Amino acid sequence: MPPTALPKGNAIIGQSGGPTAVINQSLVGAVQQLKTFKSVKKILGMRHGVSGLTKDQVVDLGKLSAATLEKIALTPSAALGSSRDKPDAAYCAKIVEACKKHDIRYYFYIGGNDSSDTCRIVNEIANSGGYELRCFHIPKTVDNDLMMSDHTPGFASAARFVAMAFAADALDNASLPGVKINVVMGRHAGFLTAASAAARGTGKGSENNGPHLIYLPEVPFDTKQFVTDVQKVYDKLGRCQIAVSEGIQDKDGKPITTLLVEGLEKDAHGNVQLSGVGGLGDGLSDLVKKHVKTSSGKAPRVRADTFGYLQRCWPDASPIDQKEARGVAKFAVKLAMKGERSGSVAIVRLKNKPYKSDFKQIQLTDVAAKTRHMPPEFISGTNDVSKKFIEYITPLLGKLPEMTRL
Amino acid sequence: MPPTALPKGNAIIGQSGGPTAVINQSLVGAVQQLKTFKSVKKILGMRHGVSGLTKDQVVDLGKLSAATLEKIALTPSAALGSSRDKPDAAYCAKIVEACKKHDIRYYFYIGGNDSSDTCRIVNEIANSGGYELRCFHIPKTVDNDLMMSDHTPGFASAARFVAMAFAADALDNASLPGVKINVVMGRHAGFLTAASAAARGTGKGSENNGPHLIYLPEVPFDTKQFVTDVQKVYDKLGRCQIAVSEGIQDKDGKPITTLLVEGLEKDAHGNVQLSGVGGLGDGLSDLVKKHVKTSSGKAPRVRADTFGYLQRCWPDASPIDQKEARGVAKFAVKLAMKGERSGSVAIVRLKNKPYKSDFKQIQLTDVAAKTRHMPPEFISGTNDVSKKFIEYITPLLGKLPEMTRL
Repeated sequence: MPPTALPKGNAIIGQSGGPTAVINQSLVGAVQQLKTFKSVKKILGMRHGVSGLTKDQVVDLGKLSAATLEKIALTPSAALGSSRDKPDAAYCAKIVEACKKHDIRYYFYIGGNDSSDTCRIVNEIANSGGYELRCFHIPKTVDNDLMMSDHTPGFASAARFVAMAFAADALDNASLPGVKINVVMGRHAGFLTAASAAARGTGKGSENNGPHLIYLPEVPFDTKQFVTDVQKVYDKLGRCQIAVSEGIQDKDGKPITTLLVEGLEKDAHGNVQLSGVGGLGDGLSDLVKKHVKTSSGKAPRVRADTFGYLQRCWPDASPIDQKEARGVAKFAVKLAMKGERSGSVAIVRLKNKPYKSDFKQIQLTDVAAKTRHMPPEFISGTNDVSKKFIEYITPLLGKLPEMTRL
Repeated sequence: MPPTALPKGNAIIGQSGGPTAVINQSLVGAVQQLKTFKSVKKILGMRHGVSGLTKDQVVDLGKLSAATLEKIALTPSAALGSSRDKPDAAYCAKIVEACKKHDIRYYFYIGGNDSSDTCRIVNEIANSGGYELRCFHIPKTVDNDLMMSDHTPGFASAARFVAMAFAADALDNASLPGVKINVVMGRHAGFLTAASAAARGTGKGSENNGPHLIYLPEVPFDTKQFVTDVQKVYDKLGRCQIAVSEGIQDKDGKPITTLLVEGLEKDAHGNVQLSGVGGLGDGLSDLVKKHVKTSSGKAPRVRADTFGYLQRCWPDASPIDQKEARGVAKFAVKLAMKGERSGSVAIVRLKNKPYKSDFKQIQLTDVAAKTRHMPPEFISGTNDVSKKFIEYITPLLGKLPEMTRL
């Protein structure tokens, strides 16, 4: 559909799904750009996403000072509050009603693939009812699992945390040698777990730095092979640091968590709860204690940490991520200003050294309810990532603290 | 015993126990000061503490350049490698033999109360055998549980991590409201768990910021009271963030972990393994899911994270901690240079605003094998810390990232 005359009315912004360290950069970018948009009267915010909007929990964002906006941009988590609701058509009809009630003509939703799908349904319902509502999805997810994009805002900051955590923890595990298992977020996509590889660095001897083994949801996990892998590294180095995605599955697609842990909670969509529990790490520890042996035939020292929610909220974001998260939101508003009726935004990498990216418009249906996985060229064997992935991830992380061994 | 003539010989430094973010600052401080000590020929390092020393695993630290030393100082974890060995008299006799073999006259051991005890025994055995060996303990522990000291090097950096983690996680939990339990290190002393309180900040509305409940090992933990506490906060705010020490105990001194989790590993000293397992958080989550209700009578969203080893190795140390960790080590070497035969070092707080501290000599027996707990004036009721504790902890943390709510 070609661009058309711009309707006059209010704009609204919502934040959805798991927060990130830079989702407020996107909120602030959208507000800043909307301030320059003449067709927009008020700039509103949904409290807790569509859940708040349908209950008239709406705030005026246009009055926030530039200084306050900059402070909010630097604050992790969703300043407006977030929502886990996955609206169906009936729910989306209520969203459209709320938009009519608040004279909303421009709808911006910051979130993952579910949020893009919500945008799509809301847009369709409004269109078919003859209400002009322009809907834009602003991408966000620490999982990096959105289609069409080189990477997604939120991912680089979480990846920075994971890389820093593995680098420091590897030194801790070299101080008091043992087997150390770290469980990383990512139900279906292994990007965040893979980011641990950046902890190895590139200096002399870095080939022996942790993580020594990396297990992704994209590669079928076999408990026997796992034990063999750990034994091999332990025999060579006297220690072994392991990165495990919370979403690792066996060859039949069954989550390893359900094989090792009993009585797990399921969410409204029937998914087993993976984050906010320590069971997978403890289960894998037990496997190592039972089957891996030191040279004296005893079980090695084994510890497991589950990095949990700090991965998505740690207040030390990647500078590139901060910039891009703001940029995608501004770009989405510019699409609206150009007369587009709907869309999402992808990040395109133009150059790796020095890193340079740009934004491009994509369709809501390009992203909606689809999941991107680690491509085969980013994976090496059954327990590592490729050199190509290291080249992909490195520029996104920002400068990492230097660590020096004796 | 009055200061006496200084024996000529080598000096050795070792690192012991759980590493910290600043234990290498102490290593570097000792090396730097020893370079000015005319009676010292070689500056040696033990690989993995006394365990390496007794196997002749000794390195020459005197050749490291000033630039390399500065880089090592900024690197978390024990650069020399650490040890969990708790030497008895026979083991200490072997240590003295190794010292004789390597012509060591000055012995510096960086560690907690067990390390101080090792220093004491080694010193006594050497003395009684007529071998002049001067033994100094350089304090280190994230638990902050050494006697006589205002606080211990290593603690402030771990406390900084905990405070930052709670501040960011509280916002995450406000974005998607629920009950969030975070388990913090500290087997017997609650200082590190208590540091979570610094996350609340002091601005407008900060009285509603997390953590809302703080459970320390010093206060008997009652599971029924816990559930009542959580329900009360949840009823008021619709969310609840909880800080729990891994070492919480019931009124009879029984670890809550052992009540909630089966099949726990015990270490060589018969202590149940508390770190590197997620069981306590998961057990407390189950309690909340069973007994706490939302206004609609359902179980609230409950998540638990166990912060684990990142607390002691996160590469963003407190600047005061970095300075003091280097300072205590230099002070210990200066004691040796003044002719003292043994000793440990305590930090004295001179002023809180602006913060100022100094070092003083204490005896090995002041620290050896003793544990300091949170004093009553730092504790408020059964689930909080006092204002006095907040005043105590705040200057130690360094500047924390500012976080702004809508």
